[in-house]
Amino acid sequence: MRLEVARVAVRDVTRPRGVELAPGVLTDDASSVVGDPDIDVVVEVMGGIEPARDLLLTAIKAGKPVVTANKELLARAGTEIFEAADVAGVDLLFEAAVAGGIPLVRPLRESLLGETVEAVVGIVNGTTNYVLTRMTEAGQAYEEALAEAQALGYAEADPTADVEGFDSAAKLAIIATIAFGAQITVDDVHCEGISSITPEDIAYATSQGMVIKLLAVARRLSSGEIALRVHPTLIPVTHPLAAVRESYNAVFVQGAAAGGLMFYGQGAGGGPTASAVLGDVVDAALNLRKGSHASLGTFGSVPLEPMDELLSEHYLVVEAADRPGVLAAVAGVFSAHGVSIASMKQDLPASSSEARGGPVAQGARIVFVTHVARERDVRATVADLERLDVVHRVGSRIRVLADET
Amino acid sequence: MRLEVARVAVRDVTRPRGVELAPGVLTDDASSVVGDPDIDVVVEVMGGIEPARDLLLTAIKAGKPVVTANKELLARAGTEIFEAADVAGVDLLFEAAVAGGIPLVRPLRESLLGETVEAVVGIVNGTTNYVLTRMTEAGQAYEEALAEAQALGYAEADPTADVEGFDSAAKLAIIATIAFGAQITVDDVHCEGISSITPEDIAYATSQGMVIKLLAVARRLSSGEIALRVHPTLIPVTHPLAAVRESYNAVFVQGAAAGGLMFYGQGAGGGPTASAVLGDVVDAALNLRKGSHASLGTFGSVPLEPMDELLSEHYLVVEAADRPGVLAAVAGVFSAHGVSIASMKQDLPASSSEARGGPVAQGARIVFVTHVARERDVRATVADLERLDVVHRVGSRIRVLADET
Repeated sequence: MRLEVARVAVRDVTRPRGVELAPGVLTDDASSVVGDPDIDVVVEVMGGIEPARDLLLTAIKAGKPVVTANKELLARAGTEIFEAADVAGVDLLFEAAVAGGIPLVRPLRESLLGETVEAVVGIVNGTTNYVLTRMTEAGQAYEEALAEAQALGYAEADPTADVEGFDSAAKLAIIATIAFGAQITVDDVHCEGISSITPEDIAYATSQGMVIKLLAVARRLSSGEIALRVHPTLIPVTHPLAAVRESYNAVFVQGAAAGGLMFYGQGAGGGPTASAVLGDVVDAALNLRKGSHASLGTFGSVPLEPMDELLSEHYLVVEAADRPGVLAAVAGVFSAHGVSIASMKQDLPASSSEARGGPVAQGARIVFVTHVARERDVRATVADLERLDVVHRVGSRIRVLADET
Repeated sequence: MRLEVARVAVRDVTRPRGVELAPGVLTDDASSVVGDPDIDVVVEVMGGIEPARDLLLTAIKAGKPVVTANKELLARAGTEIFEAADVAGVDLLFEAAVAGGIPLVRPLRESLLGETVEAVVGIVNGTTNYVLTRMTEAGQAYEEALAEAQALGYAEADPTADVEGFDSAAKLAIIATIAFGAQITVDDVHCEGISSITPEDIAYATSQGMVIKLLAVARRLSSGEIALRVHPTLIPVTHPLAAVRESYNAVFVQGAAAGGLMFYGQGAGGGPTASAVLGDVVDAALNLRKGSHASLGTFGSVPLEPMDELLSEHYLVVEAADRPGVLAAVAGVFSAHGVSIASMKQDLPASSSEARGGPVAQGARIVFVTHVARERDVRATVADLERLDVVHRVGSRIRVLADET
């Protein structure tokens, strides 16, 4: 079998491309490419919602298998496109959309066909993982690590989509859609980023044999609900995800029979993305020749666990006045909301208070770790703590990875 | 699609099985099962070479897709069976044969279709990984850790196949066959086990920020040769394989475009194996309905790198008399064979000499780490060292993971 690059649609046909293409291959009319009856397989790597969505649906309706790396589109309108492919009986392959060069979509779709997936826990953003790794291993502050990531090309000039967790949330929506066969979009994912993580948080984690990672978690609860969230999380250094360093990505899958599985590799970059796209293109071409296609199954709507109901241990930093009675007042607030304290440690003076200089310069920084508590109760505790006179502010609040994963 | 268990061949039909099967399903005549024209898919989990080989080839020639977990057979006669399946145009699926529940075969066969695999480095035996983990983390001696593994059911009463690396070598032969599309059998794999690893080796590794793992390595060299070996290896704690603890397995794949990928999970046990077999059965059934099958490609013969040519750094323990001039004599032997010393450290008195009690009780234990050297030269160095009067013995020799992986 020989594959031929028949047409390439680009925005600007005059821009030098650094590769030699036969005359007439480049075009700025994408519609003419998907409509060309001589073209057997369509590859979409343009990104964005429109016109990508329209072009893909047109190709699918014309019976062409489609390979796409479009994370944004699949996270917003995935099931629409999956179902169109199913109706048309063509392949829709998207290994590159989720975790770059890491084979994840195919194992989830095929190898784990007979398996009940209980949870998926991933580090799916290289930028934030690089920043957290440098904060942990080089003792850098967040801003310093981010600047380094930008200098190295790991982070964009506007890093918002990465550091606030939006990129991870989009990938989680796609992964959860496949893993649970459920209609899930990025809007279903609770999302928090890493921009408020402090060197003190990192130091605390290290002292406890833990690391802080930005995790994307999708879990099927015994109630039938699915919990979807992206947030910084404390995990033990012995967890396989703790060893995922720098800009690497990894996805941990908990199967009912297979147990814990992890898929690790480079989640972004030209080579890994190209490798994933090429694997899909060969697959689509082979299937086309055999007259078959990979089935995506059906996607039902599932109830989601409201974030307020989440059960988790919390690490919580309270910056307060350093005087008698403060601890009793603070502990009383936890108790009033039924949030049980597992440990408490008075730390160095609060750096933010020091920086402000004023009369609170001698404040105490108290680190609490709770037992498993309901999100709603922890939020109420934080709100009430911030109303206390003796509390300057509640600093970081970081969830701890649940035992079951 | 509904799958039905039509017949089950067992050695003893009278033994209670703990599951309810319709009358007539159990039989002790395996030939009648593979010959039954009403049976569409054959699953082989009996193990061993014969009669498994004969039964599989019979099923394949009758046009039946086959799912097998038979590591031993595939490591000895894999390409014969692969080619029979190719000729017959039927699926031969064997995800469970290599790394239990870890999806590895399918990603290698399909996701990395367009990819040049440069190296595969795996921890593919749970028993030895458990023993090494306990030696590292609990400070146990080899015998103690092995006894614990046996008590927990991780190691067999006769642990030879695991601890001497034979099990890993068989798995590596299968993985390399797929990864490189080459005719490789277990006899092509150089194999050393972990039974001579001492607590002092472990302590040295820890002091250097390294861990000792039993690695199975398959590497494609620029010469076109393939290097295949299983032996204990020092790897940095920051390497993703270092975080693979207890009885877990993982396989690290270095792709030319995809970069480093790792697949992690439980390599053995009923649940993971069943999960892998079931995934393959569903796949075979779906393919059968579509009239297609997964192609295995062709397997050429490839030149193997002779073990003597292997380039590696070595950790080497020399137990010698503790008197002036010894170090010069020992260093002279390294030098005579062109083996360059990167570091040297005189350690605690040699425990083996102490145990013997005799006149050498005051011996010195000298730990050398070499620069990259050729295996042949290191072997000649060891042989000459053991001829020196002042050297009691050369203890552990452990290779260090090459930088490129």
